Amino acid sequence: MTPYRLYYWPGIQGRGEFVRLPLEDAGAPYVDVARLPERKGGGIAAMMKLIGGGGPGLRPFAAPVLVHGRLAIAQTANILHWLAPRIGLAPRDEAARIGAHQIQLTVTDFVAEAHDVHHPIASSLYYEDQKREAARRAGHFVRERVPKFLGYFERVVDRNGGRHAIGRGTSYVDLSLFQVMAGMRYAFPRAMARLERKLPRLAALHDRVAARPRLAAYLASERRLPFSTEGLFRHYPELDVTR
Amino acid sequence: MTPYRLYYWPGIQGRGEFVRLPLEDAGAPYVDVARLPERKGGGIAAMMKLIGGGGPGLRPFAAPVLVHGRLAIAQTANILHWLAPRIGLAPRDEAARIGAHQIQLTVTDFVAEAHDVHHPIASSLYYEDQKREAARRAGHFVRERVPKFLGYFERVVDRNGGRHAIGRGTSYVDLSLFQVMAGMRYAFPRAMARLERKLPRLAALHDRVAARPRLAAYLASERRLPFSTEGLFRHYPELDVTR
Repeated sequence: MTPYRLYYWPGIQGRGEFVRLPLEDAGAPYVDVARLPERKGGGIAAMMKLIGGGGPGLRPFAAPVLVHGRLAIAQTANILHWLAPRIGLAPRDEAARIGAHQIQLTVTDFVAEAHDVHHPIASSLYYEDQKREAARRAGHFVRERVPKFLGYFERVVDRNGGRHAIGRGTSYVDLSLFQVMAGMRYAFPRAMARLERKLPRLAALHDRVAARPRLAAYLASERRLPFSTEGLFRHYPELDVTR
Repeated sequence: MTPYRLYYWPGIQGRGEFVRLPLEDAGAPYVDVARLPERKGGGIAAMMKLIGGGGPGLRPFAAPVLVHGRLAIAQTANILHWLAPRIGLAPRDEAARIGAHQIQLTVTDFVAEAHDVHHPIASSLYYEDQKREAARRAGHFVRERVPKFLGYFERVVDRNGGRHAIGRGTSYVDLSLFQVMAGMRYAFPRAMARLERKLPRLAALHDRVAARPRLAAYLASERRLPFSTEGLFRHYPELDVTR
């Protein structure tokens, strides 16, 4: 089978990680194009060419982009909605697939807010140039937004029987919730230690996902990039407020 | 046919307007539930009950929610992806539908940024309590983000032949781009007057959409709520910077 081609920034987990996780979990063949050397057609240059309109299909606004044959799909949740049924990580019936996508779009919203905590003024500025505003936003994020979003995901899992976000088996949504928990624990360890007392379903889900054999192998490999202060979830101790 | 039931804040266009527009354009039967009186099962109370988990289907995180039979679909782009093919406002082939959804999700991203201009610190605070940060963000938004997003949509329309965002006919994506242009002209009249010199395709698309008979009738009716400083797109003269 022709491998999927994923185009994403090579140095960070970022939004691309929400696509890497299901590909890895399913053992699906894929090429992480921008992580290949330029002499093999990789590097950031290859990604920028695609984003600049030099690839098949509709021009994307931003990475990640998944290319398969003549399809080039952008927007993380859109990629997952298309990809997951093909690799056995989506529920089977239509209503549940719509529901999965709905939850995933709420993950998308949360991830954007998690990013904007450290970039409340402009993504074009360094964090250091918006630290004061970031500190103010972090208080609201930790006190209001994190409990609201993670509390919602906790209830979704709980109402679905306690083990999965939707459907009866593991779906890409579960893998995304794993990533959200991992990212939040990295970025806000003190705040999460307190908040997780009310998130037992999500904590257990995180552990079950991390223990899935192919994912465990991936997470232990060099393909899993580390969290860092270049990515979506960033650890700045001064933003990790506890109240 | 059983009418669609739309649940959204009754006093603003907001994200709900991206769903109202295709329903109106298609002449589809729908009830704007929260705009009905409480004695008829409407009002904000009915919406909050649904969001609180008291309706069919998966519990939503936030409004808008579209209810049809046993389906309750949330997340604006998810609603449109499901609804538009049923009312004749989506392209026919799968690749184009994925593309339409991809563009719509980029509209979603832009709309969130347009909101956060006036709420860069927290949506729970009044604008007046984050004016200083908003002024700083507005400069970056108008100089960097608006040209990037609207320039992207302009190129998408241009590369598709100049009249539509995707496919050969009018789709829900065109209606959303109309709404984006209308909202931006309301919120940032001076900045848009300058930026629109480079957006001729979007300006023409806006006018063609507004002239569609059923939409023209809707826009002239009392069902079309006014833009205001309660909605997504807000006009604060001090944020309407020109450079």
